[in-house]
Amino acid sequence: MINRLANGEETLQKVDGAAAANVMESLKDIAPDIGKYILEFAFSDIYNRPGLDLKQREMVTITSLLTQGDTAGQLKVHINGSLNVGLTQTEIVETFIHCIPYVGFPKVLNAIMVAKEVFADHEEKANVNA
Amino acid sequence: MINRLANGEETLQKVDGAAAANVMESLKDIAPDIGKYILEFAFSDIYNRPGLDLKQREMVTITSLLTQGDTAGQLKVHINGSLNVGLTQTEIVETFIHCIPYVGFPKVLNAIMVAKEVFADHEEKANVNA
Amino acid sequence: MINRLANGEETLQKVDGAAAANVMESLKDIAPDIGKYILEFAFSDIYNRPGLDLKQREMVTITSLLTQGDTAGQLKVHINGSLNVGLTQTEIVETFIHCIPYVGFPKVLNAIMVAKEVFADHEEKANVNA
Amino acid sequence: MINRLANGEETLQKVDGAAAANVMESLKDIAPDIGKYILEFAFSDIYNRPGLDLKQREMVTITSLLTQGDTAGQLKVHINGSLNVGLTQTEIVETFIHCIPYVGFPKVLNAIMVAKEVFADHEEKANVNA
Amino acid sequence: MINRLANGEETLQKVDGAAAANVMESLKDIAPDIGKYILEFAFSDIYNRPGLDLKQREMVTITSLLTQGDTAGQLKVHINGSLNVGLTQTEIVETFIHCIPYVGFPKVLNAIMVAKEVFADHEEKANVNA
Amino acid sequence: MINRLANGEETLQKVDGAAAANVMESLKDIAPDIGKYILEFAFSDIYNRPGLDLKQREMVTITSLLTQGDTAGQLKVHINGSLNVGLTQTEIVETFIHCIPYVGFPKVLNAIMVAKEVFADHEEKANVNA
Repeated sequence: MINRLANGEETLQKVDGAAAANVMESLKDIAPDIGKYILEFAFSDIYNRPGLDLKQREMVTITSLLTQGDTAGQLKVHINGSLNVGLTQTEIVETFIHCIPYVGFPKVLNAIMVAKEVFADHEEKANVNA
Repeated sequence: MINRLANGEETLQKVDGAAAANVMESLKDIAPDIGKYILEFAFSDIYNRPGLDLKQREMVTITSLLTQGDTAGQLKVHINGSLNVGLTQTEIVETFIHCIPYVGFPKVLNAIMVAKEVFADHEEKANVNA
Repeated sequence: MINRLANGEETLQKVDGAAAANVMESLKDIAPDIGKYILEFAFSDIYNRPGLDLKQREMVTITSLLTQGDTAGQLKVHINGSLNVGLTQTEIVETFIHCIPYVGFPKVLNAIMVAKEVFADHEEKANVNA
Repeated sequence: MINRLANGEETLQKVDGAAAANVMESLKDIAPDIGKYILEFAFSDIYNRPGLDLKQREMVTITSLLTQGDTAGQLKVHINGSLNVGLTQTEIVETFIHCIPYVGFPKVLNAIMVAKEVFADHEEKANVNA
Repeated sequence: MINRLANGEETLQKVDGAAAANVMESLKDIAPDIGKYILEFAFSDIYNRPGLDLKQREMVTITSLLTQGDTAGQLKVHINGSLNVGLTQTEIVETFIHCIPYVGFPKVLNAIMVAKEVFADHEEKANVNA
Repeated sequence: MINRLANGEETLQKVDGAAAANVMESLKDIAPDIGKYILEFAFSDIYNRPGLDLKQREMVTITSLLTQGDTAGQLKVHINGSLNVGLTQTEIVETFIHCIPYVGFPKVLNAIMVAKEVFADHEEKANVNA
């Protein structure tokens, strides 16, 4: 039998290990089981299914987050995760632009502002590591 | 200068020509300009941008429609469009399953029920053509 | 002291008397107090405030209903109400078209399809009365 | 180790066995894993947690379904489930009325219309069994 | 005849007197009538209805706020109010966890982060009073 | 043939020139085409249509933004724009109050808090210019 918890941790590590550690830490005192469900259900049961690769899964994730609104924090994690699994900045921006006819400009502008911040962070880190 | 209207018609034709004709027909007497904007803005300006292919664009579209809810009609058109541009039934169902951790079961079940109907239609047509 | 109930009934009568009677009738056995609140709070306290006329109020109402989605029944009542208080079919359609950049095409198409049905009903009645 | 699948089936049986069977049946050919997740995650992991009883859980469920909109099918299952676990018709209607200040009248009216249908079904069955 | 304004003030006092004073103060110069409607309609007409007690009403309230999103300010008031009318921290957290299958993780994580802040405030006050 | 870009710039200038410049500036490095679509599609194609004047269009805009939620940034621009095209502070506040029966208090309170901030800014500027 697979260990769903370990399995989820491994997958989440690939997507956005640092952010995940923060979320788990912030849940520790108030609702650690939510962290457990995120690992077991979201990142083990769902993310590890065959049929879509991690790049496609992150593209679906950021589209769903943009569309539902009030998800700046989660978008930050998953725009970062999108870059980590291999989506380019262009693909992320194009995904958001593609949503304009379906959700209108306000939600797309909100998501773009989060992307701007995440991309800037990445370039800063790149400079530090250079 | 590109003809945005002709350009949009061509792209929409690839995605779901028959459904598009119905939407345009139903708008004709009440708000034909909406049909024009769908062609010029959605299917010419946006769908024809580089950076994502039509399969990725339809995956983003059905995710956004599932997430916002109250879009059974549009999901029908774009699940059909997803098949037309080359997504498999499995990829469509996986896209919906991937949304469970982000939007919960009710919206995903709604989308799956539309997919079920569209897939059945396709198989029926396949039988007729066999 | 004003009689909020009578006051609300009078205003609702101006907006859409026939539909209102249906709603009240359908609430009678299960939750008549909701009908009372609709009259006292929505149509007496709110609709009778100065500052906006009934045409402006109905324009705001149909915009809010279109934007929130899953409101075909209420849109039917208030597109009809919009016509009753003096908005033209063109103003109603323009209100919906104006929402495209803010909410995208799907919600606007849903509202247009309800408007189409209400407008057809009105023309039928006009023919019967001719 | 608990059997999450069997555990979830048992709990769902208490809430609304007949409706659940329908949902599972309708998912069978297209996405049976969604049915599995509903049992394992929703009805085993979540519904069986201590801290809230089934009456409280169904009250939270119908409030969340009313608030998100476009959930008539799910509301039907869970209004029925609410009655099955011991909430009275009055408690269900009061739950919906309590939402008016938070979500406005349209979503509450939508939910009340579903409740009306479910309550009528129950009375019919009661008559048949009398 | 009951005095709806005084009645609403009394009920709101039980739920969250301090927060209510802030809201009323902030509305004073721009839209005092909204404050009046909150007292008369929400806290007199609705909250004082029989059929549900204040603990149940606050459980429904925080569920509806979590589900609609973009309500951090109101969740802060009503998580506090939930504690004031006798819900435990565990019951509040369980209410949020129960919503995961219906709305997904992002909205639940948002609400948990507000709860964390409110619970910390309460413990601080408890220490000061010790 | 009209120049949609220049046309959109002119209209946006009337609505809220300063804010628009900020938005365009913030999009410049990451997604300048979104700025182009806002000008060409939203402010040229849509805002310049006949049938509604700019005051009506801004009233529809702020209603749609209030209703969808998570739009504080856009509401700030368009409450300001509403004042610029001639809506009074009273008309703006009344528009928001009118939404209470349709969306509930939380979204209306969120919008009022943004209006409060924008109105204060305007009075400050008025004082500076006195």
